[in-house]
Amino acid sequence: MDNKDGKPEAITAKKSDNFSEWYVQALIKSKFVDYSAVSGMLVYRPECYFIWDCIKNVTDDLFKKNGIQDAYFPMLIPEKLFDRESEHVEGFAPEVAWVTEAGSSKLEERLAIRPTSETIIYDSYAKWIRSWRDLPLRLNQWCSVIRWEFKHPTPLLRTREFLWNEGHTVFATKEEADSERDIVLDIYGYVMKELLALPGIPGRKTDKEKFAGALASYSIELMMPDKWAIQGPDWHSDGQNFSKAFGIKFIDKEGKESYVYQNTFAITTRIIGALVAIHGDDRGLIIPPRVAMTQIVIVPIYTNNNRSEVMNHANGVYTSISGKFRTVLDDRDAYSPGWKFSEWELRGVPLRLEIGMKEVQDKTVRAVRRDDGTRLNIVAGELPQRVQELLGMIHSNLYDRARALMDSNTHAADSYDELKQTIKDGGFAQSPWCGSEQCEQKIKDDTGAKATNMPFNVQGSDGKKCVVCGSGAKYIVNFAKSY
Amino acid sequence: MDNKDGKPEAITAKKSDNFSEWYVQALIKSKFVDYSAVSGMLVYRPECYFIWDCIKNVTDDLFKKNGIQDAYFPMLIPEKLFDRESEHVEGFAPEVAWVTEAGSSKLEERLAIRPTSETIIYDSYAKWIRSWRDLPLRLNQWCSVIRWEFKHPTPLLRTREFLWNEGHTVFATKEEADSERDIVLDIYGYVMKELLALPGIPGRKTDKEKFAGALASYSIELMMPDKWAIQGPDWHSDGQNFSKAFGIKFIDKEGKESYVYQNTFAITTRIIGALVAIHGDDRGLIIPPRVAMTQIVIVPIYTNNNRSEVMNHANGVYTSISGKFRTVLDDRDAYSPGWKFSEWELRGVPLRLEIGMKEVQDKTVRAVRRDDGTRLNIVAGELPQRVQELLGMIHSNLYDRARALMDSNTHAADSYDELKQTIKDGGFAQSPWCGSEQCEQKIKDDTGAKATNMPFNVQGSDGKKCVVCGSGAKYIVNFAKSY
Repeated sequence: MDNKDGKPEAITAKKSDNFSEWYVQALIKSKFVDYSAVSGMLVYRPECYFIWDCIKNVTDDLFKKNGIQDAYFPMLIPEKLFDRESEHVEGFAPEVAWVTEAGSSKLEERLAIRPTSETIIYDSYAKWIRSWRDLPLRLNQWCSVIRWEFKHPTPLLRTREFLWNEGHTVFATKEEADSERDIVLDIYGYVMKELLALPGIPGRKTDKEKFAGALASYSIELMMPDKWAIQGPDWHSDGQNFSKAFGIKFIDKEGKESYVYQNTFAITTRIIGALVAIHGDDRGLIIPPRVAMTQIVIVPIYTNNNRSEVMNHANGVYTSISGKFRTVLDDRDAYSPGWKFSEWELRGVPLRLEIGMKEVQDKTVRAVRRDDGTRLNIVAGELPQRVQELLGMIHSNLYDRARALMDSNTHAADSYDELKQTIKDGGFAQSPWCGSEQCEQKIKDDTGAKATNMPFNVQGSDGKKCVVCGSGAKYIVNFAKSY
Repeated sequence: MDNKDGKPEAITAKKSDNFSEWYVQALIKSKFVDYSAVSGMLVYRPECYFIWDCIKNVTDDLFKKNGIQDAYFPMLIPEKLFDRESEHVEGFAPEVAWVTEAGSSKLEERLAIRPTSETIIYDSYAKWIRSWRDLPLRLNQWCSVIRWEFKHPTPLLRTREFLWNEGHTVFATKEEADSERDIVLDIYGYVMKELLALPGIPGRKTDKEKFAGALASYSIELMMPDKWAIQGPDWHSDGQNFSKAFGIKFIDKEGKESYVYQNTFAITTRIIGALVAIHGDDRGLIIPPRVAMTQIVIVPIYTNNNRSEVMNHANGVYTSISGKFRTVLDDRDAYSPGWKFSEWELRGVPLRLEIGMKEVQDKTVRAVRRDDGTRLNIVAGELPQRVQELLGMIHSNLYDRARALMDSNTHAADSYDELKQTIKDGGFAQSPWCGSEQCEQKIKDDTGAKATNMPFNVQGSDGKKCVVCGSGAKYIVNFAKSY
């Protein structure tokens, strides 16, 4: 960092050659995240955390418009409570971090740091809900959770602590509960597409892959650059599983006591890992404009002789756009323009404006797009509008590229050979399936691919045969190797 | 709740007779917070969490305008790291919750759930900071922390988990570091006054009362209804204490290596407890308009015969104001108007608009202020502007009342007898002090009052004598019994 004529430390791996090495270098060298003193736990540095804040703000606004309110429940869960729903505890117990001591005392009962908060929240719901008048109850919390993974950690994708929202909603009837599904998946889909420029495949999970304790799970699945799947946000229909375990009952209008129907849903910081992986290139990160902490960087190019003229123009440009766009004027004398170009490219700032003597004379700026390297001259007076257009184009281009990657590597595979070939070549195989866990397991054993979900937008299992057993197919399933 | 003609469960204690009983009932019966399955840990229900969100959003905007960015560091801290600064560990170790197991494994090293994050954050800072070019570094995080209090818990005021911001800033020189103090205290003061309608006394802590590991601490102190003090937001000058313990060094422009200077600062959910205590009355909470999840409730008053006429007017009123103000139209048929009045008063909604047949005929609404019970008729066409004015008046009135309570119970006490009498009567005694811990301790032993801080706005220790030892006074100190 002290060599003003050099360059910041560049990424030495190519994304196309060694994706996983590229991914980690891109994250760490760009100062986006860092390792911490605790194995498997991450520091979210400002540009990364800013993205999470954007996700939070937009998602939360949409939750509120749809009647879902925020609350906050304790981080610690007594072991007794945690144990109350059997599928749930089986699913989470192997990854729980336990608090056993406080100060110099040993606790009488172990306390779980929440890996998810069903159990502590539903203990309150059981107290609060008495009558049909108390329903629906639709709460959400934004918090951090701990799941003590013993597998090799990967920054953002597999970490022992992550940030998320967890929605926990309660309804009088199954129909009302089910009607929330598309609302929530639409909110998450909107956030992915309009904020993060990420396409995804929404669909239902198979029973084998559903959430521990749920009746049915739904997810939005993304394709990573190595053509593996990664799960994005999800939504779960819990039916009455938890309400029966926790005694969440209400008296209906006819005076009859019934158990409530419940849903849960979540988006996590994992999606930021997918964003980095999918959009970035060999030079570093590419952050979609709507979530970039710095949307535009202005780099003045001057000598000792013309510094004041150049800076004068640069300041004017900064003034004309900084009220509308998150802009940095990088006037650090201690770094060369070349260093600055490399550094802001590594960090993924979507648009760079260069200003030298030529631009001073022409009353222009030279704009360089981070997504595709396009350079163009812009008349200074037209800046706010042109910049707005360019940021929109960058967003669309990032989305379209990611969409093209996913679409061109997703194949209908109506035979087992086609499925195996697709998985072997890398990609998503969408195949007819009879619905038996045996066939699903055989695919996993033979190919390493799992059922990511059963896409909503793919119809047509009618008349088709399960690719494994040949009996009548009930579903089209998206099979892929998965993070 | 099922008796539509009854009332919601009212608070049975009077604030003036039994403040602590009133406080707990006001919080719980209004559904503002609730106890949880973990002793000393609280559920923040939507109206409470909403206030925290407002505090967070406004404070964070001001942080960002002043160059302080958000990041997020791990929740768990390895014991070795936690132990590195001796005063700090002594101050916090007795209250640390320890994670010792994960899944079915025993951890090799205990991990502390952060009671505050200096140690985990500064471990990163030591890696990140190399040169003067890396400074200043001014980061903040919003998170929850755990301090395992063994004293009797009080909702929001003394809980084992609370939410806060923790700012951790790093500078090359002491002067730069110190110049941050008034910026941060002004931000917190603004949030207290303009959002929460809470007055406070800013000042410096005595050495005895400063933060564990700091050179100097500053706080804003509030007066509770029982005339005890409660500490609001604070700011700490840590000097080089932590930078030496954690090896946070930089090479300055002359090539010389130096340790950095650091500050920390925080506002916590405790302030919401103060807000409830200070503003509320015997009927329940009174939430200042700018942080009220529901600012205005419209209660229609109808019979079966005129329901449609009344609701028609009520809907028109709702439409005219709901875009500008957070408004609820309470059209629940299952509850009587009387029930609704009591419930919304209990919950502290600042303004109620009643609409019956008289208002339909007159094209008016009847407005009732929560803060002082004032009733007035408003012509429907003038609503948005009149409501805006009323909410402003409610905010000012709440602030003025709290200010009057504090001012009328704060007394200059130049003799030890006056100090003792003031503390005995209830209130803040502002007394000259020589600066010795011995005299400070004697006051505590004799009266139970501690030095809350040395107010900025009180001058004049010159020529005065310490109220305890009679030697020359160096400071005027605010003494009070304190939460």
